[in-house]
Amino acid sequence: MTRQELFENIKKKQSFLCVGLDTDLKKIPEHLLQEEDPIFAFNKAIIDATAPYCVAYKPNLAFYECFGLKGWMAYEKTIKYLNDNYPDQFIIADAKRGDIGNTSAMYARCFFEGDTQADAVTVAPYMGEDSVSPFLTYEGKWVICLALTSNKGSHDFQLMEDAQGERLFEKVLKTSQNWGNADNMMYVVGATQGRMFEDIRKVVPNHFLLVPGIGAQGGSLEEVCKYGMTKECGLIVNSSRAIIYADKTENFAEVAGQKAKEVQMQMAEQLKNLL
Amino acid sequence: MTRQELFENIKKKQSFLCVGLDTDLKKIPEHLLQEEDPIFAFNKAIIDATAPYCVAYKPNLAFYECFGLKGWMAYEKTIKYLNDNYPDQFIIADAKRGDIGNTSAMYARCFFEGDTQADAVTVAPYMGEDSVSPFLTYEGKWVICLALTSNKGSHDFQLMEDAQGERLFEKVLKTSQNWGNADNMMYVVGATQGRMFEDIRKVVPNHFLLVPGIGAQGGSLEEVCKYGMTKECGLIVNSSRAIIYADKTENFAEVAGQKAKEVQMQMAEQLKNLL
Repeated sequence: MTRQELFENIKKKQSFLCVGLDTDLKKIPEHLLQEEDPIFAFNKAIIDATAPYCVAYKPNLAFYECFGLKGWMAYEKTIKYLNDNYPDQFIIADAKRGDIGNTSAMYARCFFEGDTQADAVTVAPYMGEDSVSPFLTYEGKWVICLALTSNKGSHDFQLMEDAQGERLFEKVLKTSQNWGNADNMMYVVGATQGRMFEDIRKVVPNHFLLVPGIGAQGGSLEEVCKYGMTKECGLIVNSSRAIIYADKTENFAEVAGQKAKEVQMQMAEQLKNLL
Repeated sequence: MTRQELFENIKKKQSFLCVGLDTDLKKIPEHLLQEEDPIFAFNKAIIDATAPYCVAYKPNLAFYECFGLKGWMAYEKTIKYLNDNYPDQFIIADAKRGDIGNTSAMYARCFFEGDTQADAVTVAPYMGEDSVSPFLTYEGKWVICLALTSNKGSHDFQLMEDAQGERLFEKVLKTSQNWGNADNMMYVVGATQGRMFEDIRKVVPNHFLLVPGIGAQGGSLEEVCKYGMTKECGLIVNSSRAIIYADKTENFAEVAGQKAKEVQMQMAEQLKNLL
């Protein structure tokens, strides 16, 4: 998917919501556990209920891998279901991968080739250029590089400053612009980072940012938009737990749809500033 | 496995070799492609041939994930085969994972619970404490944290210096000692880093280091030992391609065994300095 197509979808749907498919067998409604593939059954119902209100889905690989073969099967079925039924949805494989060049190339094959292609994969920058660039060789695919994450541990290293006052996350933003551009790279910036979005936008004025951390992690959508929005929106804001686990009864999908709609309506308000 | 047990194995085998199981269908001998599970067939033969000469195996997850379900099945069979037949081998899931706390906890379950338990998992430190600590809650299991990697991209961020001259990899070494200790943490330091091992040992005098990069990547075993060895060895040196792809004929396993034995003999020489 191109940046222009993504922006068109955002305008059409009046939403820049990404629904995080962090599907945990311990948290899904009990009646689904009788299904042959409870993870996929849950995902399918959530997708069908939330698709009108979002532009992206983001399965986090940890939640699939931890169930071994069954988990991978559910992941592949989920991606295939999205590609077959909702081709306008931007699919993010939230994998936070990164390894030496020939190994990152294998990860890129994993997520960008074959029957179960995502549009984007999240990548950790610690190992530098050759760990990221193999993902950038795929036309129409995206790398979403960790910059300033939503968690407490983001303060451990990402804010480290060099002698000139440049912080690690800024160095990541700057350096990685030599590897890709605003048409094939995005960055992860946590919604919990508040006014730091101002600093981020000084370095990457046009790139899309993937913003986790509203909902369960406590970030504010208004603040993110105030400091992070560009004239092409430039934001994909993720919510996982607050939407997909909003209800644990047989109505779970309907309630997830309502929650997604609520967020979409808040986003439509924010998009007025843009149009 | 405890640190003491690992050291005993090293002394017994006169080896601190780890064989990297980076099994690529494009590189394994052609006759194996007729097997039902070529990846596992290759791994089993390599393991049986090299086990006398090494103390650890390190499957890199990228090489399994890129084949989807089949790849995961081969990974699980490989881990089970090692646990069932070679319980004294230290198994490293080279996954370079790391995510927010509740997600890292899922990755930890993936690698440290159930039928296919590894002894250690490699973790990327970019996201800080809560991305690493969930892996440290498992008794007898190890986190191997990226510090100074073997690839060219290691220079992009890992050498960044703060105003006091402390580099990012040093900050990772120091800070992470608040999360774990020499009995449950190791660090990845590339063999290509040469004398940098001296600087590493100033910060972590006793921790085991996992050292990739001899063989295909060009690092020197002698140099690594000269600057990195401790009185408990403190090194697990990995070789992947130079051993497992040394031969592509039906003799591949035998040749891999010979190559592993050659490295083991060089290691025995180095261990003389220690004993």
